[in-house]
Amino acid sequence: MSQPIAARRIAIIGVGLIAGSLALALRRAGYNGEIVGCGRREDALRSAVALGVIDRYELHPAAAVVDADLVVLGVPVLATRDVLSAIRDAVSTDAIITDVGSTKASVIADAKAVFGDPPPRLVPGHPIAGTESSGVEAAFAELFDGRLTLLTPTQTTQPSAVREVERLWQCCGARTVCTTAEHHDDVLAATSHLPHMLAFALVDLLAARDDHAEVFRYAAGGFRDFTRIASSSPEMWRDIASANAPAVTANLDALIARLTGLRDAIAADDRDAVVDTFRRAKAARDAYVDLVAHPAETAA
Amino acid sequence: MSQPIAARRIAIIGVGLIAGSLALALRRAGYNGEIVGCGRREDALRSAVALGVIDRYELHPAAAVVDADLVVLGVPVLATRDVLSAIRDAVSTDAIITDVGSTKASVIADAKAVFGDPPPRLVPGHPIAGTESSGVEAAFAELFDGRLTLLTPTQTTQPSAVREVERLWQCCGARTVCTTAEHHDDVLAATSHLPHMLAFALVDLLAARDDHAEVFRYAAGGFRDFTRIASSSPEMWRDIASANAPAVTANLDALIARLTGLRDAIAADDRDAVVDTFRRAKAARDAYVDLVAHPAETAA
Repeated sequence: MSQPIAARRIAIIGVGLIAGSLALALRRAGYNGEIVGCGRREDALRSAVALGVIDRYELHPAAAVVDADLVVLGVPVLATRDVLSAIRDAVSTDAIITDVGSTKASVIADAKAVFGDPPPRLVPGHPIAGTESSGVEAAFAELFDGRLTLLTPTQTTQPSAVREVERLWQCCGARTVCTTAEHHDDVLAATSHLPHMLAFALVDLLAARDDHAEVFRYAAGGFRDFTRIASSSPEMWRDIASANAPAVTANLDALIARLTGLRDAIAADDRDAVVDTFRRAKAARDAYVDLVAHPAETAA
Repeated sequence: MSQPIAARRIAIIGVGLIAGSLALALRRAGYNGEIVGCGRREDALRSAVALGVIDRYELHPAAAVVDADLVVLGVPVLATRDVLSAIRDAVSTDAIITDVGSTKASVIADAKAVFGDPPPRLVPGHPIAGTESSGVEAAFAELFDGRLTLLTPTQTTQPSAVREVERLWQCCGARTVCTTAEHHDDVLAATSHLPHMLAFALVDLLAARDDHAEVFRYAAGGFRDFTRIASSSPEMWRDIASANAPAVTANLDALIARLTGLRDAIAADDRDAVVDTFRRAKAARDAYVDLVAHPAETAA
């Protein structure tokens, strides 16, 4: 089997659900180069070796990236700057650096802070995939099948580096789209960061009730789906909220305004306004489900 | 097979997802009495007959309830009063009347308005089950298996009527719990009505963006789960919001206050406050999932 990507050695800094699944998907695609892991918790790294996710591990990022052709950052986004600082003098100038973080402008800002300019072989990335679980034990090779990975190269990123990272994701089952970091952060604030803030806030509100045990006992199946993302990693989402704060707060403001409008319409028993909101939402959501079911027909 | 309930003829006014599934579950339990349907759309009633949900239908509620021992109202909650008025002079004084609506104080108020006092054989009910689909075509016999049905008899409801409605739901696979209408409406406002308002408002917000096509294309699986309930019936939810307006608006106010607090914490980059909120929510949501998985160990 020919190798799906050019890199012969890959270093993964932060071997969790996403980067761990990437490693498993690479193996599934026939990749037989070396995959070196790195992280703060040695027991998790030992698990990653035992699970076949990585071949070996290092405890220091600078050691992990030696002779690596490709470096994948799988850490919470606010740890990006420290990791880049740690590897700066050890990483090959030929190595491609990419990441899987949920915010992208922050990663480019971190790279500028550490390297002066964004390195020409830095290709920020974000696979639109995940589960509410965390950690390498939750990793699985199929996580990216049929999913989208957004890449946000800068104006100085080398096209050859972008192509290699595109191949990386495509051999793992994902489609890739390039866009700007700013546009990525704006769109994801609406479709991902805002729903997570909502789910966390809703569950926190209900948990604060005196009758919370009964409240949860009476909850229906819809509640379970609606709040699934509230089981996501608090630390990861703290970092995302901080790293994309302007877009997240702007989206929260817009939603609070809509909720206030809906609340006032309900209080005034303005049933026409209420049902119009619900009808617009149902139409948009039903169209979204159709789009997910038939992506080829609607893709730009 | 002995009959699971005493009623020999059942009239169902409003043969949709919930009441239609109740009829199918009754048949599954061996019920061999007659089930008469009634509704506004004759084509839907013909479908209900073809699907084996009902034995025959009437287009006028007063005709449907003649000689019925049990009347089940499956209409949107704001239609309850009109239906009760329509059947008042035709329904047997021995007949038990129950409903499947998502709000309960409104049903009791409607009964008072129509009958003077709540009829002693009125047993308001609410199965905590459903899907985002509507209509009799979406009905299935397993909908209530393992679910909870809340009953909200008044102080003057006859215990024998409550027992018959408990048997009705239990033979259809559900557990039953009796509580007050006011408590029901307060708890469901938090666990069901509020999430629906949120999902509708969120999807409506995103649909209003200029780049809404791209926004939905970039949405992840979490978004699909989170917004599933935004595909629910707009008219049914308009009625619920109106019928339970005080509790719904109070819950919206409480959530808007929490979202505003979270927004301010993110804007101030108060990461400790942000992660504390997320951690409390994750702990509560994980505990809820455990409770759903092991209800017997945690039930009151």
